[in-house]
Amino acid sequence: MDTEALLRRSIEVAVDNVRLGRGGPFGAIVAREGTIIAEGMNLVTSSLDPTAHAEVVALRRACQALGRFDLRGCEVFASCEPCPMCLAACYWARVDRIWFAATKHDAAAAGFDDSLLYEEIPRAIDERRIPTRQLLWEEGRAPFHEWGRSLKRVEY
Amino acid sequence: MDTEALLRRSIEVAVDNVRLGRGGPFGAIVAREGTIIAEGMNLVTSSLDPTAHAEVVALRRACQALGRFDLRGCEVFASCEPCPMCLAACYWARVDRIWFAATKHDAAAAGFDDSLLYEEIPRAIDERRIPTRQLLWEEGRAPFHEWGRSLKRVEY
Repeated sequence: MDTEALLRRSIEVAVDNVRLGRGGPFGAIVAREGTIIAEGMNLVTSSLDPTAHAEVVALRRACQALGRFDLRGCEVFASCEPCPMCLAACYWARVDRIWFAATKHDAAAAGFDDSLLYEEIPRAIDERRIPTRQLLWEEGRAPFHEWGRSLKRVEY
Repeated sequence: MDTEALLRRSIEVAVDNVRLGRGGPFGAIVAREGTIIAEGMNLVTSSLDPTAHAEVVALRRACQALGRFDLRGCEVFASCEPCPMCLAACYWARVDRIWFAATKHDAAAAGFDDSLLYEEIPRAIDERRIPTRQLLWEEGRAPFHEWGRSLKRVEY
């Protein structure tokens, strides 16, 4: 399948998802060399999982399908611009490329917080809407010391 | 349990996780009024899921435990500053407050991309490391039109 066909498929998945009442109006595809590896759709409300955005679901399923914890060599096709959670997930999954159709402004107009989150993430900790505080710094480094000397360490 | 005890527990979870070889050196707790609702740890490599960061795992488990798709009234305690994926997940989950111990700089020093991602997310699309393109804008709005007229819509 070519780029436009894959992106159209992600849009179709999003429309179907709304029709089925499974979650928000978002769909995503992970493909490798034009072949679909996994499809994902927003399942936040039906699976009681606020992280079950279309891209996250597609990335998780693609990793399961390939038996790997990274998606090098794969591309993501999303019906809408990934929110910061999904964008960061694409980085952690090491995907090669991202394509999307609607924008974060379209999502905002439909009542979703994507655009707000893009403003919020770069803010200083004490300027964010969710009150956030750092404590116990010295103790908090212990896991990294443990990691440094672990023989069971699998890097990712 | 008080704030420090809950944060210490997230650090303990992180250390145990490394010792057990289940994933990266990160732990997180979701608590409500001082009571632990769920614990999470980084399970990226052992569960083949690049989104299975400690906070995401804790948020998902807490939602399952409470039977809800939001965590209003809950606080997150993380052994390390949440990466942008986890921070955005906290927003989507509508948590009240975030506490953390080690910082994104400690994570970076241990070889994790958290700090890089904080720089990358706010960048313009054409300046990011993962090549990204927008296409088919008009078609991409179809899911939102469907959402607007859906009787099965559950807002989140």
